[in-house]
Amino acid sequence: MRTLGIDPGSRVTGIGIVEQSGGRLRALHYTALRLGDGPFPERLGHLFREVRAVAGSYGVDAAAVETVYVKRNVESALKLGQARGAAIAALVDAGLPVGEYTPARIKEAVVGRGSAGKDQVGYMVQHLLGLREAAPEDAADALGVAVCHLHHLQAEARMAGGGRRP
Amino acid sequence: MRTLGIDPGSRVTGIGIVEQSGGRLRALHYTALRLGDGPFPERLGHLFREVRAVAGSYGVDAAAVETVYVKRNVESALKLGQARGAAIAALVDAGLPVGEYTPARIKEAVVGRGSAGKDQVGYMVQHLLGLREAAPEDAADALGVAVCHLHHLQAEARMAGGGRRP
Repeated sequence: MRTLGIDPGSRVTGIGIVEQSGGRLRALHYTALRLGDGPFPERLGHLFREVRAVAGSYGVDAAAVETVYVKRNVESALKLGQARGAAIAALVDAGLPVGEYTPARIKEAVVGRGSAGKDQVGYMVQHLLGLREAAPEDAADALGVAVCHLHHLQAEARMAGGGRRP
Repeated sequence: MRTLGIDPGSRVTGIGIVEQSGGRLRALHYTALRLGDGPFPERLGHLFREVRAVAGSYGVDAAAVETVYVKRNVESALKLGQARGAAIAALVDAGLPVGEYTPARIKEAVVGRGSAGKDQVGYMVQHLLGLREAAPEDAADALGVAVCHLHHLQAEARMAGGGRRP
């Protein structure tokens, strides 16, 4: 099972692919994609093509995107929303159903605590996936999204397989 | 010359295609696309596929999207941004360069006055394109974007052709 996780941003978007075989997790690909300083439609096109290309070339089975959060700045929200929309369009175009997780849910899945800090997510992602070096922050977040989605899909599969429901 | 205009929205997105041959403008297609009540990624997928499909089937040469404006609501800005991002991704994927115009610029091009009301845009779009009935509001706005882009491209062509520059 291969899942693709995305941490969308209008300047840098994190992309990560995690494979699970047996009980083992492994990072197949991760990047902190810089969208450049060009016109905004070009940046969105770059993001769209990159996401679709990696989804295709790694033959991923499932995908998820972090829900974005912007406190007050409407301008930032519009830009971030556009990056997220282009990324989701690429996943849908690659035929993938798209899961969505809040930052707290992802931290819970990766660190075990929804209030964990960025550093802890980076550290746990490195540890869980056996990376030699820490991934860049946005890439680590994207790998965290992929790990969270794997957890969720496994839990779902257990439920469907007749596991006890509370 | 065929241009595709988009007025993005997270619930309804206007799409319009205008053809210019000689001095005559004609609407080839327009729709107020309802994105439904499903999960948000599905709505974005619907929007993406529809935009790419019409861009392909009408063989459009150029495309433009209205810049979106949200006053204060960050949640609305995020949703609207995502719709805009999915639409732009579809245009880029169809190989089209994407122009962007503010609402004031579009009103200026269609009505002759940047502060014109919605009704006036609808009326002038109907008149300019010789529509028998008024188009639905979002579709009329999208047709207005396409008309605005045609004006801009013509002005550019005149400049490139050695027209006087002020």
